[in-house]
Amino acid sequence: MQPSFRHRVSHALDPEMNPEPGLSGLNVLVVVAILVMVLVGVLETEVHVIRQFGGLMGGLKLLLFAFFAAEYGLRIWVAGLNPRYRNGLHYAMTPAALLDLAVLVTFVTPFLGVETTVFRLLQMTRLFRLARIGRYSRAMNLLFEAIRSRDIELALSAGLAFVLMLGAATLLYIVEGDVQPEAFGSIPRAMWWAVATLTTVGYGDVVPITPLGRILAAITAICGIGFIALPTGILASAFSEAIRKARDERAHGRYE
Amino acid sequence: MQPSFRHRVSHALDPEMNPEPGLSGLNVLVVVAILVMVLVGVLETEVHVIRQFGGLMGGLKLLLFAFFAAEYGLRIWVAGLNPRYRNGLHYAMTPAALLDLAVLVTFVTPFLGVETTVFRLLQMTRLFRLARIGRYSRAMNLLFEAIRSRDIELALSAGLAFVLMLGAATLLYIVEGDVQPEAFGSIPRAMWWAVATLTTVGYGDVVPITPLGRILAAITAICGIGFIALPTGILASAFSEAIRKARDERAHGRYE
Amino acid sequence: MQPSFRHRVSHALDPEMNPEPGLSGLNVLVVVAILVMVLVGVLETEVHVIRQFGGLMGGLKLLLFAFFAAEYGLRIWVAGLNPRYRNGLHYAMTPAALLDLAVLVTFVTPFLGVETTVFRLLQMTRLFRLARIGRYSRAMNLLFEAIRSRDIELALSAGLAFVLMLGAATLLYIVEGDVQPEAFGSIPRAMWWAVATLTTVGYGDVVPITPLGRILAAITAICGIGFIALPTGILASAFSEAIRKARDERAHGRYE
Amino acid sequence: MQPSFRHRVSHALDPEMNPEPGLSGLNVLVVVAILVMVLVGVLETEVHVIRQFGGLMGGLKLLLFAFFAAEYGLRIWVAGLNPRYRNGLHYAMTPAALLDLAVLVTFVTPFLGVETTVFRLLQMTRLFRLARIGRYSRAMNLLFEAIRSRDIELALSAGLAFVLMLGAATLLYIVEGDVQPEAFGSIPRAMWWAVATLTTVGYGDVVPITPLGRILAAITAICGIGFIALPTGILASAFSEAIRKARDERAHGRYE
Repeated sequence: MQPSFRHRVSHALDPEMNPEPGLSGLNVLVVVAILVMVLVGVLETEVHVIRQFGGLMGGLKLLLFAFFAAEYGLRIWVAGLNPRYRNGLHYAMTPAALLDLAVLVTFVTPFLGVETTVFRLLQMTRLFRLARIGRYSRAMNLLFEAIRSRDIELALSAGLAFVLMLGAATLLYIVEGDVQPEAFGSIPRAMWWAVATLTTVGYGDVVPITPLGRILAAITAICGIGFIALPTGILASAFSEAIRKARDERAHGRYE
Repeated sequence: MQPSFRHRVSHALDPEMNPEPGLSGLNVLVVVAILVMVLVGVLETEVHVIRQFGGLMGGLKLLLFAFFAAEYGLRIWVAGLNPRYRNGLHYAMTPAALLDLAVLVTFVTPFLGVETTVFRLLQMTRLFRLARIGRYSRAMNLLFEAIRSRDIELALSAGLAFVLMLGAATLLYIVEGDVQPEAFGSIPRAMWWAVATLTTVGYGDVVPITPLGRILAAITAICGIGFIALPTGILASAFSEAIRKARDERAHGRYE
Repeated sequence: MQPSFRHRVSHALDPEMNPEPGLSGLNVLVVVAILVMVLVGVLETEVHVIRQFGGLMGGLKLLLFAFFAAEYGLRIWVAGLNPRYRNGLHYAMTPAALLDLAVLVTFVTPFLGVETTVFRLLQMTRLFRLARIGRYSRAMNLLFEAIRSRDIELALSAGLAFVLMLGAATLLYIVEGDVQPEAFGSIPRAMWWAVATLTTVGYGDVVPITPLGRILAAITAICGIGFIALPTGILASAFSEAIRKARDERAHGRYE
Repeated sequence: MQPSFRHRVSHALDPEMNPEPGLSGLNVLVVVAILVMVLVGVLETEVHVIRQFGGLMGGLKLLLFAFFAAEYGLRIWVAGLNPRYRNGLHYAMTPAALLDLAVLVTFVTPFLGVETTVFRLLQMTRLFRLARIGRYSRAMNLLFEAIRSRDIELALSAGLAFVLMLGAATLLYIVEGDVQPEAFGSIPRAMWWAVATLTTVGYGDVVPITPLGRILAAITAICGIGFIALPTGILASAFSEAIRKARDERAHGRYE
C-alpha cells in the first residue's frame, strides 16, 4: 500500500518519521536554505554589501520567506502523525516551532533592528537537530561523552586557570598600576591584559613597561602554555578512552 | 542519641568531621561568601565601580564581615572536637586560621592599602581545602599524579625552552641591538621579545625589522610550536597512563 | 642482459619504473632543482634582491631552464615504457606534464606577471608525487588515515568553532558596533576580530574598548583554548589509534 | 684501600668516573657556577645593570674566573685516569675542553665584544653533559626516542606547514601587494606575515586591510590551528607509545 501524500511529506520533513537512514532530499534543501539565510543575515549588516547587492539580497529574502512559510505550514499539517504531538497546534506551541514563526515574522517586518539577525542565527540550532542522525549523532555522542567523562578535571583546570588569571592581574595591578593607570589602574582592568596573555592571544594593546612588570608578564605567558596544555592533554586522553570504550562495546555486542 | 548542638555545628563547618559525603549546606554558603568577597575585593579597586556602587559595596562588606566573624567564632568554639587540634587556641594559631583573622581585620580597618585585596584573594585557598572531598579530590589527585609522573620530562622540556629562549634573545640582541637599542639593546631586553614569541603570545610591541632579524624571528616562532607541542604531548600521554592505572587499580580491588 | 639506455633513463626518472626502493640519484637532483626554482621564484618578487643579485638569478634561471627542458624531453621519450601511457604524446597530455610544459614556457617569456610565480610554486606538487615511496608513503598514509578516521569529529568541532565565531562576532557587533563602526560596524567586520581571537592569533589591530565588549572578548578568548584543544585532542587519539592498528596488522601478518 | 686524592678528585669531577649514582657535590657547584656565569653574561649586556651593579658584577666575574680556572686545571690533571683520554693534553684538545679554555680567556680579556657572551652561553652545553645521568638520562632518552620514532611524520607535517606558509604568502602578495607594498610587496615580505599568522604569534605589525586579503588571512589563521594540532597530536601519541614500550621492556626483563 502506498503511503498517503501527508505521510510522504511527514517522512521528508521529520527525521523521526523517516523510515530510511540519512537526511531526506527536502531536509538537505532546508539545510541549504538555513545556511543561505544565515549568510544573508550576516551580510546585510554591512552597508557596503547593501549598497551594491541590495536588490539581490531583497530577492533572496523573498524567496527564503516563501520557502520557510511553505515549509512551516507543511510541518504544522503533518505534525499530528508524529505520536510526540497531539495535533498541529500542540506542535506549533513548541519552542522550536515558535522560533520558526518568529523568523517568518522578521521577514515581513523589515524595520526591526538587530533582533532580526539574532533570530536568524538562532535558526542554526535547527541544523544541530537535523544533524542528530546516523554517523553524526554517534560522533557527537563520542565528543560529548569524552568531555563529560572528564568534566571535573576540566573544571579543575578552568578553576586553576581562573586563580592564575586573578593572581597575575593582581600582581600587575600592584606593579604597573601607578605607571599605567589607564591599563592597570584596577584589577578588573588588569584582567583584560591577563586574559589576553594567558590565552596566548596577546593583542598587544596593553603591555607592561616596567622591568618587574615584564618579568611577571613573562612568567604569566609561560604559565599560559600550561593553560593550553592541561585541557588539551585531558581531552586527548578522554578521546582515546572514549574510542577504546566504544570499540570494546561493539566487540562485546558482536561476540555474545 | 541526638548529637549536641556543638557537634552538629562541627559537622556542618569542618569537612573532616562531617559523617556524610559532600559539602554541608553551611560550607556551600561559605564558598559563595568567599566568591562574593573576592568579587568585591576585585571590583573595589576600580574607581568607576566605587563611584557608582559604593553604597552597595559597603553594605555587602558589612554583611560579609558579620558572616565571617560569626563563622570564625564558631570554628574556634568547635575546633576542640576535631582530634587534630588540642583546643580552640591551638586551632586559632594555625596559618589557615590566622589568615582568616587577618581578613577579618582588613574589614574593620578600611584605610589599609593593597594588602586588603591580597589577603582576600588568599582566602581562595580555603576553596581548595573545602574542595578536597569526594570526586573533586580524586580528580585533583589524578591531575597531580599525572603531572608528577612526568615531572622530569616536563622539567627537561622547560629547560630546553629556556635554552631556546636565551639563544633566540642573544641572536636578536646581536642582529637588532644596534638598529633598535630600546627593544633589543641588551639580552634582558631581547628576552621580553623572545618570551612573547616562543609562547606565541606575540604582543607586537617589539618586532625585529631587519631581514636577518625577521628570519631568526620566524625560526623562533616555529620553534614556539614545539614549545607548546612538547609539554602538551607529555601531559596527554601522562593523563592516558594515569587514567589507565586508576582503572586497573579499581579492577584489581574488585576481583581480589 | 644489460637494460637499454632508454630503460635505464626510465628507471632513473620514473619512480614507478624503478626496480630499486628509494629515490634515484637523478630524482634527488630533480628535487633539488625544484627547490632552487621555488626559491628563485620567491626571491625574484623582491625588488631589493633583483637589484643586488639580478645577474646571479638570471644565470640560475637559464641553468634551471636547460635542466628542466632536458628532463622534460627525456620523460616524453621514455614515457612509452610505462604501461600507464600509450606513448609520449599520451603522457604529454596529462595535467602533470602540461604543468611542466607551462613552467618551461614561463622561463622563456620573462614579461609574464605573477602567473610565473604561481606556476613555479605549483611545481612543488611534483615533490609530493616523488615522495610517495617507501617510508614517506607509509607515514603519509598513517597521517591521512588518522585524519580520515576522525573526519566527522573534526568536521563537528569545525562546525562548533564556526558557530562560536559567528556568535562572538554578532555579540560584539551589537555591543561595540556604535562605538567603533570601522571595526565592529557589521558582522562581517566583527568576524575579522573573532577569527583573530578564537585562533589566539590576536593581531591587536582591532580590540573592543567598552567594558561589556571586553568581558565578551575575554570569554571568546577562553573559548579559543577549547577551539585549539578539541581538534588537537581528537588528532592525538586518532594517531594513537592508527599506530596501534598498524602495529596489530603487522603482528597479524607475521603470525598467520 | 683509600683511593688517592687524584682519584677522589676524578670521581668528584668526572661523572663517568663516579662510582656513586647522581651528581657529586662538586659538580652541583659547577652547575650553580655555570648558571651564575650565564646570568652575569646576560645581565652585563644591559647598561642600566652595569651602571648600578658594575662593582658586584666585576667581583662575581673574578670569583667565577678563579673557580673555573682551578676546575679546568684539576680536570686536566685527572683526565688521564679516564681510559677515554690518553693524557691531560689529549683531553685538553677535545672541543669541550677547548670551549672551557676559550671561556677562561674571555674573562681576562674584557675588551672582547659579543663573543664573550656567546662563549659563556655555549657553556650551558656542559649542563646537558652533566645531566646525562640516572633519571634525567632516561627521561631524555624517552623524549628523543619518542621524537625519533615519528621523525618522518613530523617532517611531513613541517613540509605541509611550509607549503601552506608559501601558499598563504603568495596569495597575500598577489592580493595585498599593490595596497601595502611595504608589507606585502614581495613574497619574502609576505612570508613574515604568514609565519606570524600560521604560528598564531600574531604580532599585528602587518595585517591585511582589503576584504579579500582578510578572508584569506582568516583561512590561514584557522589552518594555523592544524599547524599546532598536527605535531602536538603526533608527539602525544609518540609519548604514549614510548612509555608503553618502556613499561613492557621493564616487565619483560622482570619475568624472564
